[in-house]
Amino acid sequence: MTARNAFYAQSGGVTAVINTTACGLIQEARRLYLLSPERIGKVYAGRDGIIGALTEDLIDTSLESDEDIARLRHTPGGAFGSCRYKLKSLEQHRAQYERLIEVFKAHDIGYFFYNGGNDSMDTAWKVSQIAESLGYPVVCVGIPKTVDNDLPLTDCCPGFGSVAKYVATSIREAGYDVASMARTSTKIFVLEVMGRHAGWITAACGLASENAGEPPHILLFPEVPFDPPRFLARVEECVKQYGYCTVAVSEGLADADGRLIAESGTRDAFGHAQLGGVGQIVAQLIKDKLGYKYHWALADYLQRSARHLASRTDLEQAYALGVAAVDLALGGKNAVMATIERLSDAPYRWRIGEAPLAAVANVERKMPAEFIAPDGFQITPACRTYLQPLIEGEEPPPFRHGLPDYVRLKNIAVEKKLETFAI
Amino acid sequence: MTARNAFYAQSGGVTAVINTTACGLIQEARRLYLLSPERIGKVYAGRDGIIGALTEDLIDTSLESDEDIARLRHTPGGAFGSCRYKLKSLEQHRAQYERLIEVFKAHDIGYFFYNGGNDSMDTAWKVSQIAESLGYPVVCVGIPKTVDNDLPLTDCCPGFGSVAKYVATSIREAGYDVASMARTSTKIFVLEVMGRHAGWITAACGLASENAGEPPHILLFPEVPFDPPRFLARVEECVKQYGYCTVAVSEGLADADGRLIAESGTRDAFGHAQLGGVGQIVAQLIKDKLGYKYHWALADYLQRSARHLASRTDLEQAYALGVAAVDLALGGKNAVMATIERLSDAPYRWRIGEAPLAAVANVERKMPAEFIAPDGFQITPACRTYLQPLIEGEEPPPFRHGLPDYVRLKNIAVEKKLETFAI
Repeated sequence: MTARNAFYAQSGGVTAVINTTACGLIQEARRLYLLSPERIGKVYAGRDGIIGALTEDLIDTSLESDEDIARLRHTPGGAFGSCRYKLKSLEQHRAQYERLIEVFKAHDIGYFFYNGGNDSMDTAWKVSQIAESLGYPVVCVGIPKTVDNDLPLTDCCPGFGSVAKYVATSIREAGYDVASMARTSTKIFVLEVMGRHAGWITAACGLASENAGEPPHILLFPEVPFDPPRFLARVEECVKQYGYCTVAVSEGLADADGRLIAESGTRDAFGHAQLGGVGQIVAQLIKDKLGYKYHWALADYLQRSARHLASRTDLEQAYALGVAAVDLALGGKNAVMATIERLSDAPYRWRIGEAPLAAVANVERKMPAEFIAPDGFQITPACRTYLQPLIEGEEPPPFRHGLPDYVRLKNIAVEKKLETFAI
Repeated sequence: MTARNAFYAQSGGVTAVINTTACGLIQEARRLYLLSPERIGKVYAGRDGIIGALTEDLIDTSLESDEDIARLRHTPGGAFGSCRYKLKSLEQHRAQYERLIEVFKAHDIGYFFYNGGNDSMDTAWKVSQIAESLGYPVVCVGIPKTVDNDLPLTDCCPGFGSVAKYVATSIREAGYDVASMARTSTKIFVLEVMGRHAGWITAACGLASENAGEPPHILLFPEVPFDPPRFLARVEECVKQYGYCTVAVSEGLADADGRLIAESGTRDAFGHAQLGGVGQIVAQLIKDKLGYKYHWALADYLQRSARHLASRTDLEQAYALGVAAVDLALGGKNAVMATIERLSDAPYRWRIGEAPLAAVANVERKMPAEFIAPDGFQITPACRTYLQPLIEGEEPPPFRHGLPDYVRLKNIAVEKKLETFAI
């Protein structure tokens, strides 16, 4: 019996460490192939995620050198391309699911690895179901990835720890800057961070404040309805007490009716909603009501691609999950997601676990209410205990010419065997 | 004869390495004091810059431990506080200059070190003049500092190399992110960087593009009048050719009439100018005219406080200038600024030099026209040759609990001897 090949795809927003997972997965597959070539063949990656599977645009990773695959460990972004394409229900998109199986058959793919968030786990689960019913068994294993840290049944999601480290470092550093200037110039600094539905990234900013009075002074969570008078009163208190005030605000900040603050702004002459981020809206509110000069920053993609400052914990987990996915698949574990299980907080110990895809699919993990302080503006000690180990450790990438030296793969396509398919 | 004390002040916007200069200066003063205590006494720092001198609010740095002074080398911001307070001409503000001399007399200050940009060098020069005429000689030495890299007669300014390294790294990393997602999602990424009058920081982004097609694809300099049709045509070309387009834009981007693009925006319902940064305006223009989804980031203070990613060249120069300032002062060199002289590009070699404050004061160094490519959207090889060594090398700060471990000094005030003085 010939070894069956594997398909791997990256899905959704990319992170600083999703390629680290790809590195672990490909290196483990190569290692096992050398040991017993009858167990696993090549790893084909979908170009631009699942779209590559649908269009039969497969990348032959076996044509990449060992050196370049090793460099994936320290390269941000998605090396094979990712996409925000969501397969709908089996009923609506049955032809697409069938197409996936057709492509898998054509390229002798027996393992399907899907590296993504909630939607991706749902897709992986559906593929596992239809493969069975179409009589072409494929072992489907999900691998978690999301800066939003919102997948259930895993202690955390690769990608989150590195964003957490980046935003906490950034607001600490900017805090030193503002503190220096506050007497005669800028007194307010606002950093807008990602997290439309859950405040995990905003909470991570709070790690920078280890002692009373240290930045950030105020966290604005999407979970806590924005109350301008209370917020302004707290800003004023900080300025009186510390001479300045630093704020981390989630892009998902909303009012008591659930309306996003970012969309509540004024409209321009053409009737377009003002597009300034919520960070600017909040900063301008302070200026208008309290008169303080502000600066604000919008981290945007910088926060999720900042491989130069990735967390070593995050890297190790991302890598281990890639390895584990292969081992689970070869062990015949179908329709599972590899997970992180926390064994202890301090010292931090963890191991790889697994969860049924059916239980993960489309379930969003919220931040526990007990992670937000009673005043709504800070994290609790319990939250700190949870978050702290996730940002520990550094593993800088190699530098060349003063800049991080990242890899670009050759990404050579596998020869097509099927008719084209319109998606 | 008792040793005379030194006064040191930080001025203007702070940087990732201005404390590195303070570290060099204080360590050198301590070293010389141990060798020959009759030559130099204590270093007093102005709390919040020159304001501390005017208000006789002096910080006794001799009360800080050697360990904490050493930690200044890796701490961003201004450890003693900085300010944007500019002393005007001798005619207008003679009382202030006289007050400075009065404070210097009261605390036996014989050395005046001013660490800042153009305005500060002007102030230092004026102090050197009036001290002479009031019969209280003070040796005045300027130390360059500005992320804007716009001081003349020095090869570069401490602070700039680290911002340069940060913005080039950031746009490279974000470029990997956008490239992964471009097929189905965001095709445009815009990073807004500092530099209101000169495009040095924008140019530094260009270092990330080492081969054709690598981000950033377009640089928008304050020196090149913004021409929307030409810009949009170039964006379209990039999207066609590479699938995406990344843009670095200077906050100082202006139109052919010199009007800032950031101020040309629409007004809100209250008549306020729309405050969205120029990064957003440029990105929205692409969306409106070409229909491409965009992301944009505003680095703001993050870029100038990012000590975690400082350039080792920048750190070494910042430190050496602090040391050199003391040596110049004790050598009786009055009214000079310590400078960096470039000896060769590759290998990069440099040494400390000096320039008369009178020649530095209020002179702004522009970016040479030959550093901008003929199409106005890229840097030239000559620019790359100049910039490259300034971002070389890494010297990460110590980390604790997963975050950079920066120092906060005790900053204990020297007892006041004079009446209060209203500024």
